[in-house]
Amino acid sequence: MPGGFRAGGIAAGIKPSGRPDLGIVATLGEPAAAAAVFTRNAIAAAPIRVSRAHLNATEIGGGGRFGWADAIVATAGSANAATGPEGDADQAEVCKAVAEALKTRPERTLALATGLIGVRFPVAKVRDGIERLVPQLAATDDALAAVAGAIMTTDTKIKLATAIVELPGQNGAPVRVTVSGIAKGVGMIHPLMATLLGVILTDASAAPDTLYGLLAPIAQRTWNQLSVDGDTSTNDTVFLLASGASRARHVATATREAAELGRAIEAVARSLARQQAADGEGASTLITCQVSGAADDCDARAIARSVVSSSLLKAAVHGRDPNWGRVASAAGNARLPDEELLEAAGLHHTEAMPRAGRQPEFDLERLRIAIAGTPVFGGAPLAFDRDGVRRAMDAPEVLIRLDLGLGEGTGEAFGCDLTERYVVENAEYTT
Amino acid sequence: MPGGFRAGGIAAGIKPSGRPDLGIVATLGEPAAAAAVFTRNAIAAAPIRVSRAHLNATEIGGGGRFGWADAIVATAGSANAATGPEGDADQAEVCKAVAEALKTRPERTLALATGLIGVRFPVAKVRDGIERLVPQLAATDDALAAVAGAIMTTDTKIKLATAIVELPGQNGAPVRVTVSGIAKGVGMIHPLMATLLGVILTDASAAPDTLYGLLAPIAQRTWNQLSVDGDTSTNDTVFLLASGASRARHVATATREAAELGRAIEAVARSLARQQAADGEGASTLITCQVSGAADDCDARAIARSVVSSSLLKAAVHGRDPNWGRVASAAGNARLPDEELLEAAGLHHTEAMPRAGRQPEFDLERLRIAIAGTPVFGGAPLAFDRDGVRRAMDAPEVLIRLDLGLGEGTGEAFGCDLTERYVVENAEYTT
Repeated sequence: MPGGFRAGGIAAGIKPSGRPDLGIVATLGEPAAAAAVFTRNAIAAAPIRVSRAHLNATEIGGGGRFGWADAIVATAGSANAATGPEGDADQAEVCKAVAEALKTRPERTLALATGLIGVRFPVAKVRDGIERLVPQLAATDDALAAVAGAIMTTDTKIKLATAIVELPGQNGAPVRVTVSGIAKGVGMIHPLMATLLGVILTDASAAPDTLYGLLAPIAQRTWNQLSVDGDTSTNDTVFLLASGASRARHVATATREAAELGRAIEAVARSLARQQAADGEGASTLITCQVSGAADDCDARAIARSVVSSSLLKAAVHGRDPNWGRVASAAGNARLPDEELLEAAGLHHTEAMPRAGRQPEFDLERLRIAIAGTPVFGGAPLAFDRDGVRRAMDAPEVLIRLDLGLGEGTGEAFGCDLTERYVVENAEYTT
Repeated sequence: MPGGFRAGGIAAGIKPSGRPDLGIVATLGEPAAAAAVFTRNAIAAAPIRVSRAHLNATEIGGGGRFGWADAIVATAGSANAATGPEGDADQAEVCKAVAEALKTRPERTLALATGLIGVRFPVAKVRDGIERLVPQLAATDDALAAVAGAIMTTDTKIKLATAIVELPGQNGAPVRVTVSGIAKGVGMIHPLMATLLGVILTDASAAPDTLYGLLAPIAQRTWNQLSVDGDTSTNDTVFLLASGASRARHVATATREAAELGRAIEAVARSLARQQAADGEGASTLITCQVSGAADDCDARAIARSVVSSSLLKAAVHGRDPNWGRVASAAGNARLPDEELLEAAGLHHTEAMPRAGRQPEFDLERLRIAIAGTPVFGGAPLAFDRDGVRRAMDAPEVLIRLDLGLGEGTGEAFGCDLTERYVVENAEYTT
């Protein structure tokens, strides 16, 4: 675990199953610089509203997107979404309990939650859990894994990733900086549940706005390129916290060090997004779509995301069917994110968006498609060994590559196959 | 069948199964005014490119959206999409064969096709079929039903609808005007197939641009509010043809008669879209979402469409689960169509679109949701008889109503449940 943090997770009794459902990440004293990206669903859950308000209170001008934090409190079992003003009060109460136990201020506590929509927290149980958990917090990898375990819902595996980068230290000599992340969110076995949650910690030193400047485009290239079932949740949240405990020199915006730190953060985010896709609800296969030769990177990402989001392509991968027509059709359906989405992603200043909301450049005659390593389309259907490709698709990951033959843009996206199990699990009753 | 048309369908040998796969609708001599809406997939199939060129050749300034036609040739078994210049030549050849058999001009022949992507027509067989079929064309309802049968793919039922409207006749006395439509398109059993096709015929008299002015917003309110699996096909096409054979007075744009004719056309289009949703691939339940109280109709339609498109809500309906959280979350994810889509739908002149591409106005505290007639959410979760609602959901159609409490906007959308059968059918091999 990156220096400057401690963590832990326990069962507080929110989940009827009695499995872990409360996790806390806390600093070791000094507040950490913090940046956040949140869901774009118009129904933002209480933890998102409270976290935005807290970030806004600690960094004026951050617009609730970055600030300072001493703790993150993560709960599973109730999403605390669509719970009205009472849900907001519950969430504030939980943050206050964390702040009291840690002897810090409530506005330095961020929150994320996953679970049933429309169900209120058992606040007393959560408060008791917080009092029990805070003394147990530890600065170990196992403790961070316990937080990852406490936010699992339909996940079958915990998602953890770490990257190391060397940055100049305070005396000039290189020091090791650690970036570790956890995430959850794979679909829904338990109906009404809806969440992608991620936390990335680093012991690098950087200002909140520098962190946000790194996080927003990275989230766009990683988590925003992940699709399990096409439904955007009410609770999606990713936090990035930097403690500075590595004693690496402060990382300023738009420096070589910021780029290096960004690469480490992106490696962690990408690994977590891939773990989430591979563990997608009901899924048996990770689908990775890589696009090259696009007019620009935005086009490439939009096309990759459209391909992994197609129900028909997802079902074809499940059937080990090298169905390039569905790939081509899904690519032809791609649309660039509109201005509002780019704004929400903090990219309106960083990426050119003259064509926001429009279709990527596309020319079927220049398109090349390869499935599991075999070219299947090159401006026209290609003859290929169908049985060989089917055998190659019988793997934990299927790679679909498209080259548009138009420019230098590249991008990728991550998804999973659509299985009968997805339907069965999501058709079960709420009660 | 509306006066002025004849029709028929036979098996020409495109489908290996030997089932009907060739349908023709032809006028009785005078060309009919014609309007069309096509797919927005960047990969437009050969029949779409050829039809656009033909419409453009018969009405300068129509931009390929309206013109004049003597015939529509419909084929199933090959979508003639992603088939390159050879596919275009095949399609032109088919139109020429129809024109020769009918003794008219190729540019007065429109085409639509459904079936495998990337597979070429067996042109000789289709030409033979045309020569056999043209002498059999008849001006009967059965003949129109035969066309509907010839464009079926995974459809389990033919889709037909008729509406009657009285319009002023040439001598002033009211005459009966008939509007009849056929459609197909329910998903995919046979992989790589992708098509929604619709044809509406009327014996009213109207100019091509008047027809297009009626068709575009009607398609927006009906077919564009239909979702089976979220994948937009390469071949979607709807044609509206008016023969004038009713001897009703010529219907001019923006008159009371145009509004009345529009209502009849909309009734037919809505019925066909509902039939398509109910027969959605693998589906057991038609989902109708009706939205009221929105800021405007565009907002209402976007929200209704988002609800019926949610995989999670579709799975919940399959499980008879009154899962209002998924309804609310899907509503919160709605986005208005962007400017390009409205342009493509011909609505850039007819609808205000200052907020194109943005999120509809939405306030969770004012939102009311009813499932199968029972209120389940009213700004906050409502207590309700869960078992009673589950029983009410065990029906061929489930109605989900939302009132946003914001304005006078209304809209609806049609979808179907997501079932294991959808996955199984679409995971089967191409070959």
